[in-house]
Amino acid sequence: MIEVIPLGTGSALPSKERHYSATVVEHNKSLFLFDCGEGTQFQFLHAGLRPTRIEAIFITHLHGDHYFGLPGLLSTLTLLGHEKRLTVVGPQGLQAFLDSIPSRMKAHETSLDVNLIEIDPEAEYTVAYDSPNCQITSRPISHSVQTAGYRFQEKDRPGNLNVAYAKKLGIYDYTDYRALKEGIAVTNAQGIRIEPKEVVGPTHRGASFAYVTDTMPCEGGLKLAEQADLLYHEATFTEEHQQRAVQTRHSTAKEAATIAKEAQTKHLLIGHFSGRYKDTSILVEEARQVFKNTDAAEELKRYAIMDTVAPSEHLKP
Amino acid sequence: MIEVIPLGTGSALPSKERHYSATVVEHNKSLFLFDCGEGTQFQFLHAGLRPTRIEAIFITHLHGDHYFGLPGLLSTLTLLGHEKRLTVVGPQGLQAFLDSIPSRMKAHETSLDVNLIEIDPEAEYTVAYDSPNCQITSRPISHSVQTAGYRFQEKDRPGNLNVAYAKKLGIYDYTDYRALKEGIAVTNAQGIRIEPKEVVGPTHRGASFAYVTDTMPCEGGLKLAEQADLLYHEATFTEEHQQRAVQTRHSTAKEAATIAKEAQTKHLLIGHFSGRYKDTSILVEEARQVFKNTDAAEELKRYAIMDTVAPSEHLKP
Repeated sequence: MIEVIPLGTGSALPSKERHYSATVVEHNKSLFLFDCGEGTQFQFLHAGLRPTRIEAIFITHLHGDHYFGLPGLLSTLTLLGHEKRLTVVGPQGLQAFLDSIPSRMKAHETSLDVNLIEIDPEAEYTVAYDSPNCQITSRPISHSVQTAGYRFQEKDRPGNLNVAYAKKLGIYDYTDYRALKEGIAVTNAQGIRIEPKEVVGPTHRGASFAYVTDTMPCEGGLKLAEQADLLYHEATFTEEHQQRAVQTRHSTAKEAATIAKEAQTKHLLIGHFSGRYKDTSILVEEARQVFKNTDAAEELKRYAIMDTVAPSEHLKP
Repeated sequence: MIEVIPLGTGSALPSKERHYSATVVEHNKSLFLFDCGEGTQFQFLHAGLRPTRIEAIFITHLHGDHYFGLPGLLSTLTLLGHEKRLTVVGPQGLQAFLDSIPSRMKAHETSLDVNLIEIDPEAEYTVAYDSPNCQITSRPISHSVQTAGYRFQEKDRPGNLNVAYAKKLGIYDYTDYRALKEGIAVTNAQGIRIEPKEVVGPTHRGASFAYVTDTMPCEGGLKLAEQADLLYHEATFTEEHQQRAVQTRHSTAKEAATIAKEAQTKHLLIGHFSGRYKDTSILVEEARQVFKNTDAAEELKRYAIMDTVAPSEHLKP
């Protein structure tokens, strides 16, 4: 299970209604931050999230509304004496920018262990982060500067073991239980071979979330969104301003919905709204004409995505 | 007359209660910004101030809570197509930092005309900004890195001309009126010399404001505050944490008040409060024991300082 918490759904100009781009994925005890616009660390406070829980930060592109909160957030982690290794992923130029920050950041270089990864703009596909529990991949998307979309994929976990039934089949040992969950057959005291599928339920399919902003509708975004449980896709403009979307290399709400539909995404959250829309209902309306399960991303709201757990009852004899 | 509007009264760690350092001086139609911590541009929105009215920005030092809002503010001015020349003053290293910001700031270099001035840390006194209406001077203050305190001085204006009395003395010409206001004697049709002091009231003394943060109590701060109408002085700690103030090169509320008293300041606003004080009343209390006219700076409140205008009635014969 993961929870997705949008922290900022605005675009380049500041507004009273919305904050700059930033979205958190909470998984187990770790936080994964996608984009870090100015003020992101304040939104952490308002969301009740401790920044020391951040495992990795993924920056889409070097327009200020997506990364100007990074110096402040890293400084705060330094001040808090944070010593855990922190992965920061982003486009080319991010390392040079962080290296150029005077004073406080120099202190951080000694105390805060930043593992900075710059994404090769030519690579079709990059594994940006990998752990036993999840993998974050990146693909180039189509904006005015090098921009990366991301997909958070919780790894699949073995199904539930029906211990009562396993015991009936003569399996009592925890080593055997573990082996069965890992897909390895075991043999009971009577020499009968027990196959994993006899006692282990279906695999838990990990939750998936795609973060696609800023971009025109594009192949990279489509692939990242493929059958995702949740897609956050930018929808800066309504159809009325479609020309403006093309000029600035952004998407309309309808285009975001078309990506969600083609990718067979389960749920679409639109965001990165132009400040001209105080009310997002027209954007949602236009998107829903193409893809019904669309909502406007709400800042600080938690969107829970359960991994798919099948009941193991059917395994009972 | 000037108005001083504190936008942020917190210190290095983010808090829900306060924002990062920034204070605006409004004078005529221009705004002068002192410090620009992360989120300053949002505070402009909440204060109902248009950032395009900013004439000059003064950064005290390169700790993030005092300048990490600068990239975002400059980017926003660029996006708004702002073309007025903007003076940015700060310590050494500021130019290199601004030059290192990718993409959006590159655009700004062509459209936004930034006149960047780095303060010589060896100079006892620097005129940081000068116009016919005001002058901003800077002095080094005592923190862990190069830090500049500032004083905003509205220029004195000539007193009011008693036109009715000037006419009685035989002066009818506007050129003569202007000369008298500029301190030049004129001669009437009868050949009698009229001295300015006969018809012009006392000079309007310009309003003054000193901005002194972050610092231990020091000579520079004292000189900047000399007979100022309003002094904003940092008071990060209470007396209980005086040792911590020394270690981190900050001031206690009592020390800030001592500066205000010695400098014969009229009104003291304390700020830059450590996050440990949710309630500032203890800080104010400690300061008032030394300097009665002390208040905790309130974010978004307008502190008006009138220039001293003497009535010209006494000039009437």
